[in-house]
Amino acid sequence: MAERLKQFMNVHLDFINREIEYQVERLNAPQILKESMLYSLKAGGKRIRPLFVVAVSEMFNNKQKEVYTVGAAVEMIHTYSLIHDDLPSMDNDDLRRGKPTNHVVYGEALATLAGDALNTLAFGVLARMENVSPEKKVELINLLSIASGAEGMVGGQVLDIDGEKKRYNLAELEQVHVRKTGAILRFSIEAGAVLADATSEARRALIEYARHIGLAFQIQDDILDVEGTSDQLGKTAGKDEASNKNTYPALLTIDGAKQKLEEHYQSALKALDNLSEDTTLLREIANYIISRNH
Amino acid sequence: MAERLKQFMNVHLDFINREIEYQVERLNAPQILKESMLYSLKAGGKRIRPLFVVAVSEMFNNKQKEVYTVGAAVEMIHTYSLIHDDLPSMDNDDLRRGKPTNHVVYGEALATLAGDALNTLAFGVLARMENVSPEKKVELINLLSIASGAEGMVGGQVLDIDGEKKRYNLAELEQVHVRKTGAILRFSIEAGAVLADATSEARRALIEYARHIGLAFQIQDDILDVEGTSDQLGKTAGKDEASNKNTYPALLTIDGAKQKLEEHYQSALKALDNLSEDTTLLREIANYIISRNH
Repeated sequence: MAERLKQFMNVHLDFINREIEYQVERLNAPQILKESMLYSLKAGGKRIRPLFVVAVSEMFNNKQKEVYTVGAAVEMIHTYSLIHDDLPSMDNDDLRRGKPTNHVVYGEALATLAGDALNTLAFGVLARMENVSPEKKVELINLLSIASGAEGMVGGQVLDIDGEKKRYNLAELEQVHVRKTGAILRFSIEAGAVLADATSEARRALIEYARHIGLAFQIQDDILDVEGTSDQLGKTAGKDEASNKNTYPALLTIDGAKQKLEEHYQSALKALDNLSEDTTLLREIANYIISRNH
Repeated sequence: MAERLKQFMNVHLDFINREIEYQVERLNAPQILKESMLYSLKAGGKRIRPLFVVAVSEMFNNKQKEVYTVGAAVEMIHTYSLIHDDLPSMDNDDLRRGKPTNHVVYGEALATLAGDALNTLAFGVLARMENVSPEKKVELINLLSIASGAEGMVGGQVLDIDGEKKRYNLAELEQVHVRKTGAILRFSIEAGAVLADATSEARRALIEYARHIGLAFQIQDDILDVEGTSDQLGKTAGKDEASNKNTYPALLTIDGAKQKLEEHYQSALKALDNLSEDTTLLREIANYIISRNH
């Protein structure tokens, strides 16, 4: 990992993790529910989404502590989607990040409810932020709702499941992934800009960066599912092919997918050229995303 | 049904239903997902929660059309909770309001996702309201998140499931129901007051009314599960006893439950005595809730 990114993570990951845990621990709620929510939140995610919120906001010299709260909110949405996605009626995964999935530990009913509670809590923590104007809170809540709901992540999951019965072409596959993984990454990046009062030009450039990073992220995921081992990934490798998923390697061959990955990586970097701020960190995160092995 | 309530429903139910449908139909989302969301939204609910928002707001002479949007949001939360509650891993119900449940029609995966999308959408529609200040939107979103999440409805469902393994005393059972059904009813009533800029004294009286109405609502539900027929209820009667649920009749006998119902009904009416506004409608809704047969 590049030096600047390593240093950035050293500074911020602890704050992000503490904010995530604090927001659940402070709840006046049944202990077993909090335990189940925290189990998945603490299962060792890379925190890419919160890191994006912080990195973008910091690029514009915004150092308010609420970046961690917005990061926690987006991690809650990401985590709830994994819990529900792993359920027997969905992808039926027993292993996630090398650990038993939520429903394996807590049962399906509680896993469903823990996911529901995390989804709801994300909007609550945004509404309760200090030192952020009501206007900005409403904007962030609106963006998160669009990114994570029927028009974004959940809609993408529906298309993904539906796709097991048919073959998508490249444009259709991109649409699935723009929604399924791209929308929440885009939110993370855009939220950092909203918190920092970035200009609309800067925001446009970041959204373009986010679009390509989102697709690159998903293509790397698809490639890892083919080339990685279960041990490395912390989840069952080769599941996409087994469940007849629409993926980049299936559509373009593994070499074609790698070429597409490189194209989106380059386009993401190019989008950053439109910013006058120091974009070193965002370039390093992009590189980290396309070269990660889990 | 009392005349005033009948007339009130005639005026408002159409607007409520149209707003609910509009908020889903306008989404740029996969058709099958929208269909699944609308299937449960249109499955013939009584719309008690949206009616409370409108009734309370109208009592303070607030006639803005956003009362329907807040009503739609709370109905989305209520509906998502029913979809998830009916899943095989939860209550495993095939029938709801006399129709096959969502997962019976659309499969478990899509039912889970339709529920998730409705949960998320509720916060989005609140954030996107016109003619409501950002401050009020944030307050409503915060209240809805608390009422529907780990500290409210979802927490109550966890206690309810947990209770199948033990016997609650009356105070514990009240705690389950204050969260499980009470919190969302309270939100509906409080939201009407927020929209109408009610005084804090009026709000306190309404919250007290809401607390008793919420418990009365749940006790009547419990009684109907024992005394009603499946045909009348539109869902399987006698399920509580079969699944060893903690209920008022199980704890207090059916006569004891009916007495408790009457007590909470009287306390709800008494709370309204603290208001100088015309509370006829709220009294009629209270009566409707305790005398309904489905």
